[in-house]
Amino acid sequence: MTFRYLSARLAQQIDDELMSAAGAFSIGQLMELAGLACAQTLAKVYSADKHSRVLVCCGPGNQGGDGLVAARHLSMFGYKPTIYMPKPGSKEIYQRLHTQCSNMQIPTLESDDQALRTALKSSDVIMDAIFGFSFKGPIRAPFDSALPLLTSSGLPIVSVDIPSGWDVEAGNEAGVGLTPDVLISLTAPKEGVRLFRGQHFLGGRFVPRAMEEKFQLNLPAYPGFDQIVDITEVNQKL
Amino acid sequence: MTFRYLSARLAQQIDDELMSAAGAFSIGQLMELAGLACAQTLAKVYSADKHSRVLVCCGPGNQGGDGLVAARHLSMFGYKPTIYMPKPGSKEIYQRLHTQCSNMQIPTLESDDQALRTALKSSDVIMDAIFGFSFKGPIRAPFDSALPLLTSSGLPIVSVDIPSGWDVEAGNEAGVGLTPDVLISLTAPKEGVRLFRGQHFLGGRFVPRAMEEKFQLNLPAYPGFDQIVDITEVNQKL
Repeated sequence: MTFRYLSARLAQQIDDELMSAAGAFSIGQLMELAGLACAQTLAKVYSADKHSRVLVCCGPGNQGGDGLVAARHLSMFGYKPTIYMPKPGSKEIYQRLHTQCSNMQIPTLESDDQALRTALKSSDVIMDAIFGFSFKGPIRAPFDSALPLLTSSGLPIVSVDIPSGWDVEAGNEAGVGLTPDVLISLTAPKEGVRLFRGQHFLGGRFVPRAMEEKFQLNLPAYPGFDQIVDITEVNQKL
Repeated sequence: MTFRYLSARLAQQIDDELMSAAGAFSIGQLMELAGLACAQTLAKVYSADKHSRVLVCCGPGNQGGDGLVAARHLSMFGYKPTIYMPKPGSKEIYQRLHTQCSNMQIPTLESDDQALRTALKSSDVIMDAIFGFSFKGPIRAPFDSALPLLTSSGLPIVSVDIPSGWDVEAGNEAGVGLTPDVLISLTAPKEGVRLFRGQHFLGGRFVPRAMEEKFQLNLPAYPGFDQIVDITEVNQKL
């Protein structure tokens, strides 16, 4: 029995239930665990001695929040993250997470493409936390010009949950999305990444068993007390 | 240069600064990381196949909250935690964390000593999250009778931050505290545990470098992307 790929609607429903009065999770808790899993995934594949300069690209939604949490943890792990977030989220939590990064002396780029171009030249790896499972195209400014810059940099990319520009269900059919080397799916993989063939991890080890059963997620077993699990082979067998 | 042991006052000051408007952390974020570190520490020392039945003892304050987070993560790691919290905290976050545990089918004991006695007979290890660094004696009911029951059970004990019953600065001079086998200090070790000679871990990998320098904490290096570090030898050399 293999795990279930989530539609955009189902992913939203699971998130909503976790954060409902009955589910009782706060968004801050879930983001903390999600962002930690993202940082650990990058650290697992790209060591700090060879890939210390991480450009963490954050969108304006919750996935941008995951990115900010990841940037902070990466800094704790000895990396030198830089934040690119041309459209900061308006939620209070987003601002707090950004302040936490600033307190760690993590720089944030100016939001123009020129700043991005310059930063890419002095980066070793990209974390893509721009669009999440609530993304609906088309890609709007400033990300319409930013995504091609990320791609043409040739740097390795670690995407969070759904590579930016991919349709959450149809994947990269339109061919306008990033092509990451590494993917960290959160809670459960989304429909759109069925055909992803890079290194694939799962994070978000917080789904209660009852919810897992209700939605028939068939999540893989995480090793020991790890917060991420490598699902590359599972995904490629499907 | 060795790390600094914190007075109760300094520990409180660091917590306050982290959660101030400038520090920007929410209590939920810090509790999540602290509780995860507690669960990982227990899992590091006591494997789930031999010590699956964990009695997680929670006090009414923030350390009780850490305990509830730890219970949830232990459940995710494959343990069978049971919660003993005869005086539930009144804060909203405490109640939410408890609901999250209930959603994971983690049972909570009745609050009388008899229930505790019975539960101890079917437990493999105790997590002590009763009193934290804001504890000031004497030990009041119901914990005045509960602590001796925990001790006389003979079960291994993993204490969080400061073993319950110990003075935060003077340690177990009065001899009324628990005698844990394992200690997980959070943020930085407290004065009172200088003479602790069991297995000693540090968690709470979220202190910004600037704050670490300001308070001259001289924190040890955490390995890789781990959330805990074994400081047994460092402590015993002092």
